[in-house]
Amino acid sequence: MKLVVVGADAAGMSAASQARKRRGADDLQIVVFERGHFTSYSACGIPYWIGGSVQDRDALIARDPAAFRAAGIDVRMRHEVVAIDLDKHEVTARDLDGRREVHEGFDQLVYATGAVPLAPEWARIRDGGVFGVQTLDDGAAIHDWLDRAPRPRRAVVVGGGYIGVEMAEALVIRGLEVTLLEKSAQPMSTVDPDMGERVADAIREEGIAVRTNAHVQGLDTENGRIRAVVTPDGTLPADIVVLGLGVRPNTALAEASGIPLGVTGGVRTDLRMRVAGLDGVWAAGDCVQTVHLISGQPVYVPLGTHANKQGRVAGINIGGGYATFPGVIGTAATKVCNLEVARTGLTEKEAAEAGYAFVTSSVESTSRAGYYPGAAAMTIKLIAEKRTGLLLGAQIVGRTEAAKRIDALAIAIWNRMTVEEMTSLDLSYAPPYSPVWDPVLIAARKATEAVHAAE
Amino acid sequence: MKLVVVGADAAGMSAASQARKRRGADDLQIVVFERGHFTSYSACGIPYWIGGSVQDRDALIARDPAAFRAAGIDVRMRHEVVAIDLDKHEVTARDLDGRREVHEGFDQLVYATGAVPLAPEWARIRDGGVFGVQTLDDGAAIHDWLDRAPRPRRAVVVGGGYIGVEMAEALVIRGLEVTLLEKSAQPMSTVDPDMGERVADAIREEGIAVRTNAHVQGLDTENGRIRAVVTPDGTLPADIVVLGLGVRPNTALAEASGIPLGVTGGVRTDLRMRVAGLDGVWAAGDCVQTVHLISGQPVYVPLGTHANKQGRVAGINIGGGYATFPGVIGTAATKVCNLEVARTGLTEKEAAEAGYAFVTSSVESTSRAGYYPGAAAMTIKLIAEKRTGLLLGAQIVGRTEAAKRIDALAIAIWNRMTVEEMTSLDLSYAPPYSPVWDPVLIAARKATEAVHAAE
Repeated sequence: MKLVVVGADAAGMSAASQARKRRGADDLQIVVFERGHFTSYSACGIPYWIGGSVQDRDALIARDPAAFRAAGIDVRMRHEVVAIDLDKHEVTARDLDGRREVHEGFDQLVYATGAVPLAPEWARIRDGGVFGVQTLDDGAAIHDWLDRAPRPRRAVVVGGGYIGVEMAEALVIRGLEVTLLEKSAQPMSTVDPDMGERVADAIREEGIAVRTNAHVQGLDTENGRIRAVVTPDGTLPADIVVLGLGVRPNTALAEASGIPLGVTGGVRTDLRMRVAGLDGVWAAGDCVQTVHLISGQPVYVPLGTHANKQGRVAGINIGGGYATFPGVIGTAATKVCNLEVARTGLTEKEAAEAGYAFVTSSVESTSRAGYYPGAAAMTIKLIAEKRTGLLLGAQIVGRTEAAKRIDALAIAIWNRMTVEEMTSLDLSYAPPYSPVWDPVLIAARKATEAVHAAE
Repeated sequence: MKLVVVGADAAGMSAASQARKRRGADDLQIVVFERGHFTSYSACGIPYWIGGSVQDRDALIARDPAAFRAAGIDVRMRHEVVAIDLDKHEVTARDLDGRREVHEGFDQLVYATGAVPLAPEWARIRDGGVFGVQTLDDGAAIHDWLDRAPRPRRAVVVGGGYIGVEMAEALVIRGLEVTLLEKSAQPMSTVDPDMGERVADAIREEGIAVRTNAHVQGLDTENGRIRAVVTPDGTLPADIVVLGLGVRPNTALAEASGIPLGVTGGVRTDLRMRVAGLDGVWAAGDCVQTVHLISGQPVYVPLGTHANKQGRVAGINIGGGYATFPGVIGTAATKVCNLEVARTGLTEKEAAEAGYAFVTSSVESTSRAGYYPGAAAMTIKLIAEKRTGLLLGAQIVGRTEAAKRIDALAIAIWNRMTVEEMTSLDLSYAPPYSPVWDPVLIAARKATEAVHAAE
């Protein structure tokens, strides 16, 4: 039996490792093709490497090709799979360095090609200094560019989502003058505007120039280097441009091969991560579509944590075990300058789109007992269904010891708790860790009142 | 209508406040009797005040008598209720300063007398320098003793539970030579021995002499002052002795009045905190018995967080609303020197006593992505039911950003999740907050394997 894996980052290598764990090399041959230079790395760590808080690029790599090979997984780096023949059960890969093609038959296939950065027409230039931030190769290119003479002084980051904001901060730390362009009214639109406002303030306080409702018309280059970003409101000089416009599933190959895509553009799978309708073909990670368990809608949520879980699930099933990936509830966290920001479930906008009628409430509390040294303010916003009081979503903004509290709320949502039920929860209390009413409990109380008030 | 509340700390004043919120002074008169000098204070904060990280005693007081009076609650300090006549609906209180007795009729009564420290025969001395740590008056007495000449140099803390360990640390910070005596094989028996071992090491590292399997035979005093603690293994010189032997419900008055007690010694109530079988009589806080939702057994768990919730529930019901306190699952957290320690659900010993067959598993992980600055080690132990895989208990020991993760596990237990279900949980991930597999998820994976291995 032979397993071929396309893509050697989180999803692909989790699948390969789990399959190997359950089936020895005599039983299952595993070949992995990767077009890049790296395996199993943390793309989420790239901004911290660029910003210098992580010194060593290799620290971002969980496991290198040699380690996988030692475990009996045949990893072929710099090999891009260019065709998948589902009838013949064969992939064709191009050796990007050796320039030759190889053919490899398979019994089982894992499609784990990840995502590609969204790049509008104007961003598709070959000139230097314009970067996406998706792969470790991308990160390495940015790192090189910042170190190379003439050293960039002015940066423009296009897109105010997680990666855009994290990169803007990293570039400020590196001493650059940074402008963040966001097309909507506010950066960090993954939280509601009332919470996002606090985030925008923190970004500005860090010395990042934020321009909202901003549209990019084009890039101005000279001698093969970026020179400026052109907007209707004027031209912004730039020695480096970072694109944080989001990503889309990397599915060109899937589409060409007859692997079915969902409405979000991601590969469609079943709960075991088997590609819908195709025996022996699996998909996982940033290239797949999943389901939002609270809205019931198909969603595309490219996140390392899902990629790892999905890869693991695929690998367990390939290995003869049983595991499922039931879907997501939209949990995410980030550090924005000195602010911790986290969310789970649905935002107001998402809840409305899903068809929910809901109430919202926000509370201000502290991370520790008010009298305990280091107590810091935090805001928790809850969104609860009208009448039932079902918790639909939660958002947290705080200075410290705030973001990870979202996990408690995520598990409450996962288990379809009402905010009133939550007021009884037996959460931990000690003055160094929380007020006697944990902020999560205070939020549940306030939301319960809001549900009753709306009756 | 008149409401009389016996006891003005967390439970009593939460009840009074919630009742007042729902019923104005014209509708409901509220009289509160308190034998001590303080209302609504954080007893859990006492060690931090003694240790000096909290400077001001009044910072521990959430709301003083004047503030309650301004809200239309008639708080009578230094009044000890000495009799409750349930037939006549009348309480008798003794004014501890004025030395006279007052009688007060009631329509509704809240019994919220709290707990009293366990004090074996040898500890019941009137000589100076021996203290329990239960009320803010106790804390104030310790604070005075430490400041008064001749200044104590040597301290013996008897009992290695939360309060004992926290007080031992506080006294070390104050510069005293501290010995901690624990009658069992290990301090911090609220966690399993394998986890407790790490805690014991941390306590010793702090310079606290720990004596386990230690028995106290008596106290040696001279001229009305403590001089030493006598044990079978020798006499320990001591200028101050702190008792951390636990507490028992303060129910002498309840018993004398015909208020029913449960098998644990605490007052028996229904879900709404109404005293079992007695209309118009309520009880809440450290004097009541509750139920452990995972063992199904009646338990006595005196904790500020429960007291607040129970008081609130009683007050809402008295005020004409509806609220319940369904029980507890044994969540607790503490900071022991440089260690964060937390638990929820059942320990191994408790699970066995409850009748569960179970498996256990422990994992080592980090608070943040391994490469992110400040990542600190933590251990998570899970206890899961055999066959079903139901999560029964969890314990965490770590250096930082560890203890509060217990809340996620507490909510999983509350919702009767299996460890296998938990592997799919959508928890937050960002390098500053967790590895891509949060320690909680890694623990769930490992426990799932343990459940399967035991099949």
